Amino acid sequence: MTTGVRRRMGVAERRQQLITVALELFSHRSPDEVSIDEIAAAAGISRPLVYHYFPGKQSLYEAALRRAAEDLANRFTERREGPLGARLLRVMRRFFDFVDEHGQGFAALMRGGPVAGGGTAGAVIEQVRQAAYEQILGHLGVTDPAPRLRLVVRSWVSLAESTALIWLEGRDVPRAELERQLVHDFAALVAVPAAYDDDMAAVLARIMRDEPADGPLGDLAGRLADLVPQVSSAARVPQQRA
Amino acid sequence: MTTGVRRRMGVAERRQQLITVALELFSHRSPDEVSIDEIAAAAGISRPLVYHYFPGKQSLYEAALRRAAEDLANRFTERREGPLGARLLRVMRRFFDFVDEHGQGFAALMRGGPVAGGGTAGAVIEQVRQAAYEQILGHLGVTDPAPRLRLVVRSWVSLAESTALIWLEGRDVPRAELERQLVHDFAALVAVPAAYDDDMAAVLARIMRDEPADGPLGDLAGRLADLVPQVSSAARVPQQRA
Repeated sequence: MTTGVRRRMGVAERRQQLITVALELFSHRSPDEVSIDEIAAAAGISRPLVYHYFPGKQSLYEAALRRAAEDLANRFTERREGPLGARLLRVMRRFFDFVDEHGQGFAALMRGGPVAGGGTAGAVIEQVRQAAYEQILGHLGVTDPAPRLRLVVRSWVSLAESTALIWLEGRDVPRAELERQLVHDFAALVAVPAAYDDDMAAVLARIMRDEPADGPLGDLAGRLADLVPQVSSAARVPQQRA
Repeated sequence: MTTGVRRRMGVAERRQQLITVALELFSHRSPDEVSIDEIAAAAGISRPLVYHYFPGKQSLYEAALRRAAEDLANRFTERREGPLGARLLRVMRRFFDFVDEHGQGFAALMRGGPVAGGGTAGAVIEQVRQAAYEQILGHLGVTDPAPRLRLVVRSWVSLAESTALIWLEGRDVPRAELERQLVHDFAALVAVPAAYDDDMAAVLARIMRDEPADGPLGDLAGRLADLVPQVSSAARVPQQRA
């Protein structure tokens, strides 16, 4: 028994503490900029003791990554009640909270930095994408999506990722605007194939049916219904002549 | 001097031939599935001779990658004449031709496989994204884009990537449909912020001004002008009551 002032932690507790400390460090710098010495110092233990719990930095990085991924996937969970626009907006707020908290680490991971690469990182990223995809399908009330809907939902998840990464570079568009924009983008990416495919038009109609005029999607629909005929009036003229 | 039946190639010519052969192999499988022996056999030379021109597989992979990247970047080059929708559609056709030709290799690279990773691959991918981004801005006639437009163009380039990757997995939506859809998505991603921002509305108006009604964007605008008020009629009612 040691007699130090620090309380002795159990193995599981110490592992969780190291993951928390490591995640905090990996969130603000890319993995190759964070050393085991720093993690040990931040956890208030010796370097050899870190190695007692984790074989090396890569293993600690992967554990931190899994914790972050679980956190991120959970943020896509949202009660399936009320208009979709408001639900997606809450999800996008939590998503940008995450991106904000883990900025540098998120960017390093998604851009595929040197230590960040490897099978685990790729697999963890795919799991989060899949969780987000399933959540969105759940909100649409769809269990067996047609290929066109699958593609729209998956490409929107990817759009959310890339929008967040671009935002992190300069933060020169307010994040609240991008949270709303991504909700709008979702409806827009559904509306495009809906203009040509009846099944997608039915999905769009189902989404819009429950949207209030002052919700994010009702507001966009109202504005676009005014704007689109206006900017495309030149384009419509030959059609009217025909 | 050898007296073999094979014509002796110069150094530069042999390097180019090896890159061509390697690119063909790397296009259909991920880099870790292609061996130097196979490359040597396909080029009709010995394994040691391959090492005479390239220090190893990674270096040959990177050379093939640079050749492919240059090819891909060139496909975004398009005469700045005529309506934007038709121009983008030609670009998307060439982009999907590329994706089709280099399917497996493109997927392995973009998904960040084991050998695919590393600094060179990331840098080459970023160069292609940047080239595509600059081409699109050129088509919009914009030299000093505001942050909102920068973000839309960059996120659309990323959407084109992810749409192509998803398409490669199952090819369950016809590629011609996705080429047109990505052109439509571009206009949709511009239209969303245009509903809230005057500068983006001006960009949208400029795009639509030259679009014929039977071009891809005129057609979409016409269809959405009919569809949007229809599906969002429920959403509009409370506004009419107010």
